[in-house]
Amino acid sequence: MVRSAVDESETKELDLAILSSSRRWSDNLPSSYKVGLPPRQRLVSEFLDKLKETLFTDDPLRPYKNQKRSRQFIIGLQSLFPILKWGSEYNFIKLKGDVIAGLTIASLCIPQDIGYAKLANLDPQYGLYSSFVSPMVYAVLGSSRDIAIGPVAVVSLLLGTLLQNEFDYTKNRAEYYSLAFTATFFAGVTEAALGCLRLGFLIDFLSHAAIIGFMGGAAITIGLQQLKGFLGIKNFTKKTDIISVMKSVWGSVHHGWNWQTILIGIAFLIFLLLAKYIGKKKRSLFWVPAIAPLISIILSTFFVYITHANKHGVQIVNHIKKGINPSSAHQIYFSGSNLVKGVKIGVVSGMIALTEAVAIGRTFAAMKDYQLDGNKEMVALGTMNIIGSLTSCYISTGSFSRSAVNYMAGCQTAASNIVMSIAVGLTLAVLTPLFKYTPNAILSSIIINAVIGLIDYNAAILIWKVDKMDFIACMGAFLGVVFVSVEIGLLIAVSISFIKILLQVTRPRIVLLGNLSRTSIYRNIQQYPEATTVPGFVIVRVDCAIYFSNSNYVKERILRWLTDEEDKVRDNGQPQIKFLIVEMSPVTDIDTTGIHALEELHKSLKKKDIELILANPGPGVMEKLQSSKFTELIGHNKIFLTVGEAITNCSKEVGEEA
Amino acid sequence: MVRSAVDESETKELDLAILSSSRRWSDNLPSSYKVGLPPRQRLVSEFLDKLKETLFTDDPLRPYKNQKRSRQFIIGLQSLFPILKWGSEYNFIKLKGDVIAGLTIASLCIPQDIGYAKLANLDPQYGLYSSFVSPMVYAVLGSSRDIAIGPVAVVSLLLGTLLQNEFDYTKNRAEYYSLAFTATFFAGVTEAALGCLRLGFLIDFLSHAAIIGFMGGAAITIGLQQLKGFLGIKNFTKKTDIISVMKSVWGSVHHGWNWQTILIGIAFLIFLLLAKYIGKKKRSLFWVPAIAPLISIILSTFFVYITHANKHGVQIVNHIKKGINPSSAHQIYFSGSNLVKGVKIGVVSGMIALTEAVAIGRTFAAMKDYQLDGNKEMVALGTMNIIGSLTSCYISTGSFSRSAVNYMAGCQTAASNIVMSIAVGLTLAVLTPLFKYTPNAILSSIIINAVIGLIDYNAAILIWKVDKMDFIACMGAFLGVVFVSVEIGLLIAVSISFIKILLQVTRPRIVLLGNLSRTSIYRNIQQYPEATTVPGFVIVRVDCAIYFSNSNYVKERILRWLTDEEDKVRDNGQPQIKFLIVEMSPVTDIDTTGIHALEELHKSLKKKDIELILANPGPGVMEKLQSSKFTELIGHNKIFLTVGEAITNCSKEVGEEA
Repeated sequence: MVRSAVDESETKELDLAILSSSRRWSDNLPSSYKVGLPPRQRLVSEFLDKLKETLFTDDPLRPYKNQKRSRQFIIGLQSLFPILKWGSEYNFIKLKGDVIAGLTIASLCIPQDIGYAKLANLDPQYGLYSSFVSPMVYAVLGSSRDIAIGPVAVVSLLLGTLLQNEFDYTKNRAEYYSLAFTATFFAGVTEAALGCLRLGFLIDFLSHAAIIGFMGGAAITIGLQQLKGFLGIKNFTKKTDIISVMKSVWGSVHHGWNWQTILIGIAFLIFLLLAKYIGKKKRSLFWVPAIAPLISIILSTFFVYITHANKHGVQIVNHIKKGINPSSAHQIYFSGSNLVKGVKIGVVSGMIALTEAVAIGRTFAAMKDYQLDGNKEMVALGTMNIIGSLTSCYISTGSFSRSAVNYMAGCQTAASNIVMSIAVGLTLAVLTPLFKYTPNAILSSIIINAVIGLIDYNAAILIWKVDKMDFIACMGAFLGVVFVSVEIGLLIAVSISFIKILLQVTRPRIVLLGNLSRTSIYRNIQQYPEATTVPGFVIVRVDCAIYFSNSNYVKERILRWLTDEEDKVRDNGQPQIKFLIVEMSPVTDIDTTGIHALEELHKSLKKKDIELILANPGPGVMEKLQSSKFTELIGHNKIFLTVGEAITNCSKEVGEEA
Repeated sequence: MVRSAVDESETKELDLAILSSSRRWSDNLPSSYKVGLPPRQRLVSEFLDKLKETLFTDDPLRPYKNQKRSRQFIIGLQSLFPILKWGSEYNFIKLKGDVIAGLTIASLCIPQDIGYAKLANLDPQYGLYSSFVSPMVYAVLGSSRDIAIGPVAVVSLLLGTLLQNEFDYTKNRAEYYSLAFTATFFAGVTEAALGCLRLGFLIDFLSHAAIIGFMGGAAITIGLQQLKGFLGIKNFTKKTDIISVMKSVWGSVHHGWNWQTILIGIAFLIFLLLAKYIGKKKRSLFWVPAIAPLISIILSTFFVYITHANKHGVQIVNHIKKGINPSSAHQIYFSGSNLVKGVKIGVVSGMIALTEAVAIGRTFAAMKDYQLDGNKEMVALGTMNIIGSLTSCYISTGSFSRSAVNYMAGCQTAASNIVMSIAVGLTLAVLTPLFKYTPNAILSSIIINAVIGLIDYNAAILIWKVDKMDFIACMGAFLGVVFVSVEIGLLIAVSISFIKILLQVTRPRIVLLGNLSRTSIYRNIQQYPEATTVPGFVIVRVDCAIYFSNSNYVKERILRWLTDEEDKVRDNGQPQIKFLIVEMSPVTDIDTTGIHALEELHKSLKKKDIELILANPGPGVMEKLQSSKFTELIGHNKIFLTVGEAITNCSKEVGEEA
C-alpha cells in the first residue's frame, strides 16, 4: 500500500509537468521510487536478529564458515586457548624477542609490585605473588600479544580504599586479607561473566574524558600518599583526599620529617626522571627507564646496608616473606555479610581493572593491526583473577606502562608474560631476603615516577578544545578523586557519563532545514546561512530515534519551530505556512509512544490547517507507522522519498487549488 | 579552511567536465556549496545554550517578550497562581458547568475514596481527607482545566505495599500513619523539586508500554485484593501476588466465605457494570456510571440497615470519623531512619503519581487544545501534597476515571475541583455516620468496577502489532506486578525502559547505502532492494551521535561492513574497493572518544589502502573534527556535502590516475 505513496497516475502527470517546464532544475524531478517497506518479521526472528546485532556484532562464528568439521574443532580449541594458536607457530626468533621483553618487564615490575601492594595496604610479597600466577594464566588464555599483566597503581589504590572502608588493615588484619581475596575472586567472576554473557560493551559506558580525569586524579592521590615514605613520616592519615594529606604532612613538619630519607628519595627520583627523559628522547634507549627502578633499588639497598642509615630513621622494607604463592582458597568469604561486601568491592574494582586492560589491548591491537575479541579477553582476565584469588594474588590487570615497555622491547607473543612470571617466581623463591634494607623512600620514588605518566594533561587540553561538556566530566572526576576520595571520583565519572547518555536520548537535535538554491539539497539553516526557507513550508529534521524518552520533546520542539516560523512569516507578510515536512532519514526507530506523539502532532497541525508530510522514513519506522495505521491517518500520499519531492508535489497541489 | 573542501580550481575543472558530458545526470552535479562550519562558541555561552535547550525547551519567557513592566508583573503573578487568570474571566455560564461537573465527580469520588484508603491500609476517612484539602490547593495553583484531584487506586496500592514492608499496619499503627504522612510530604517535595529544577522530563523515562503493563498488572492485583471484601474472608494474606491471594481464597472456601456478602457484592457489581455499559453506549448518559457508585452505597447501606445483615456475617464499614481534616504536621518524621524510609517511599510513589497526573493533563490539554506547562503542573501537584501531608491527606494526584467524568460533565475550569472539595468537606462534617452500615462488599465492587478500566488490552494488542520489544516490556511489567509484587513490577518496568535507552545509544544502526539508479539518492539497501552498490565504493550511514558509549561499536561495525563487501567483491571478481564513504547527516554530535574511533578507523583503512571520505557532517561534528585536527588528518578535500558529490569527485580522481 505504502509503496504507492504517489499514485501511478499522479507520477505520470508530474513527469509531463516537468518535461514541459524546461527551465526547472532536474534535481527536483520526482524519482519513480517509493518509500520502501522491509519484509515483516515474526517476533522470534525479530528478537533473535536484534539480539545478534546487540551481542554478536563481531560475528564470532565467521572463521568457522565453510570449514571442515575437524578444522572447526581445532579453531574452537584455539579460540578457547589462544596459546595453541601462537604456540604452534612459535620459533626461535620469537623466543628471543619474548625473553628480552620478559626480562625487561620483570625488572620493571618487581619494584613496582612491592610499591603497589603497599597502596592496597597489603604486605609487599602479595604484589609479587600477583605478578607470578596471574601472568602465567593469562599467557594460556589471553589473545593480546603485547599486554603485560600484574597489579596496577589505580586498581591497587581503589581496592585499598574500598577495603579500608570495611576493615582497618592494622587492627583487623585477617579480615582485611580475607576480604581482599574475596573481592579479587568476585572481580574475576564479574569479568568472566561479562565476557561469557557478551556484555563487554558495558565498560564502554565510562566515557573517555571521565577516565582521563579519574586517572589523573588517582595519580595525584597516589603521589600524595607517597609523601609518607618519601618524607619518612610515621603518623600519616588513612584518608586520601588532598586536604587531609596536606594537614598530615605539615603537621609533622617539625619532628616527623627525616632528612636522610628525603635525600635518598629525591636523589633517586631525579635519577628515575632523568632515565625516563632519556628513554623519551631516544626510542632505542627505551630500556634505560625500564631497568632504572631495579638499579635504584640495588644501589639504594646497598647504600643503606653499608651506611646503616636505617638506624638514623630511614624506614626500610625489613621483611618480604620468602617462597612462592601459598594457597588462599580457605580465606575467601563465601557466606555472610562479608560476602556481600566482597562482591560489591569486587564488582567495582573488577570493572575498573577491565576498563584499563581492554583499553590497552585495543591500543596495541590497533598498532600491530590484529583483531582482539573484547569478550574473550574478559573471560581470560576473569579466569586469571579467579585463579589468582585462590593463590594469594590480588586483582591484576594489564598495566599500561609495562605493556608499552613490553611492546618496545620487541615482545612477539604472550610468552613474554611467562618469562616475566618465571623471573618473579625466582625472585620470590630466592631473592626476597636481599630486599631487607631497601628503603621505603625508593619505593615511593618509583611509584611517583610511574604514576606521573597517568596525568595526561595533553589529553585534557585536547578535550577542552574539542568538547567543553567532556571537559566538565573530566574535571568533575579529577576533582572528585583529589578532593574527596577515589570512590566519589569514580561515582562522579559514572554519573556524568550516564547523564550525558540520557540527555542524548531525551534531547535529540531538531533542526530547521533550508534549501541550498539551485539544488534539491536541504540543509540545517544554522550551519548553512545561505540556505533559504521555502515559502509556505516549514521543514524540520529529527536527528534521533523517537522513543518514549524523547517523544514528547520531539513533538513540542517541532511545534515551537512552527510557531517561531509563523511569527516570522506574519511579521514579514509572507504567505501563510501550509505544510510541515518532517525529514525522517536519521530517525532509526520509533516506538508506540513515539507514534502517539506523531498522532498528537498531526492533530495539532490539523487544527491550524497545516498538513503533515513525512520524508524518507527508514524501514523500521515505515513498518511501525503502517502497522499502527498512522500512514492511513495522514494519508499514504503524504510520505515522500525526499524533501525535494515532497515540496515539488505539494507546491503543485497548491497551484492546482489556486 | 574546511569551507574550501573542494579546491576552487578543482571545482572549475569539474564544472567543465560536467558541461562537456551532456548525458550525465545533473543530479550528480557538484554544487558550489561547501560543508559549513557554525561560528565558534565560548564555554559559557555553549554551556548556557545547551542548558537552555535541555531545561527550557518550552521557552517559558515567551509571553513576557515585548510587554510593559506592569503587564509582565501581572503575567508573572498569573503564572504563579493560574486561578488569577481564569478567575478574572470567570462568569455564570462557566460556574454552572463547574458546579454540575463538581457535584458529579464528588458523587463518584466519595465511595472511591473510602475504598482506596483501604488499599493503602488506612482508615476510610483518610481517603475523604485527601479529596478535601488537595483539590482545593490544586485549584489555586494548577493550570489544567480538566484534571480531577484525589487519591487513585494504583498509587494507594503502591503506597500501602511499600509502607507495609516497613511497618505492619495492625501492629504498629502509629508508625504506619507517621510514615504515610512522611512519604506524602516527600512525594510532594519530589514533585515540586522536579518542577522547580525543570527536570520534569525525568518522568518520560518510563516507557508508555511499561506503564500500560504496570497499570494492567496493578489493576488485577487490586481486583484480587477486593476478593477479601467481596467474599467476606476474614483471614486474608497481606501479600499481593496472585499465588498467595489464590491460596488465601481457596484455603477459606469452606468456612471463610459468606454467601450474603457475595450476593450483595455480585448484585451491585452487575449494576455498576451495567451503568458503565450504558454510559459507554450513549455519551449523553455519562452521568449514569458517575452516580451509580453513590446509588449502590445508599441502596446497600439501607438494605443492610433494615435486614441487620451485619449480624449474619456481612462486614460493614462501622465507623468513619466525623469532622474535617485534623493536623498531621507533628506526625511527620524529620529525622532518624524513618526519615530515610519515608523519603524512599515518597520519591517512588511521588514519581508514579506524577506520571499519572501528567499523562492525564497532557491528554485533556490536547483534546481542548491548550498549552500545559508540565514543570509548573509538577510544582502545583507537589505543593498540594506537601500541604496535604500536614493535614492528614495521603498522596493525591489526578485520577483518570474522575477526570474523564469531569470533562464529560462539562467542567470549565479548576473550580469544579473546589465544588467537589466542598461536597466532600460537607460529607466529612455531617454525613459520615450514615456510612456505618455500608457493607465492605459494596466498596470492593466499586473498586473492581473502577480498576477494570485500567486493563487496557486494546493498547497491549496495538503494542504487540507495532513493536515486539515494547510488548516484552509491557508483559514484563504486567507479570512482575501480578506474580511477584508492585515494587518488582515497577522495577522491571523501569529497568526495561532503561535497558532500551542504553541499547539505543550503544547499538546505533549502521546501514549500507546503495544508489537508486538515475538519481543521486543513496538509500538503505535493505529497505530499497533496487538500490545498487557503486563499484569501488562502500557507503555506510551512521544513524546516531557517536559517543563514548558506541564509538567502538561504530568503528567495528563499519569495518565489518567493509569486510563483508570485500568478500563479495572478491567472489564476484568486481573492482577492488578504494573508498569508504561515511554518510554523517544523522550524526548529531561526536565526542573525544568518537573522534578517537574515527582516527582508528582511518588508520585501519590506510593499511588496506582505502580512503576515508565523510559526507555532510553537521555543524557540531564539523567544529569538533576541525578542532581535533581530524580534518587535517584525512584531508580537507575528503569532506563533501553529499554522497553524490563525493562519488563524482572520487571517481574522477581514480579516472585521472588511470
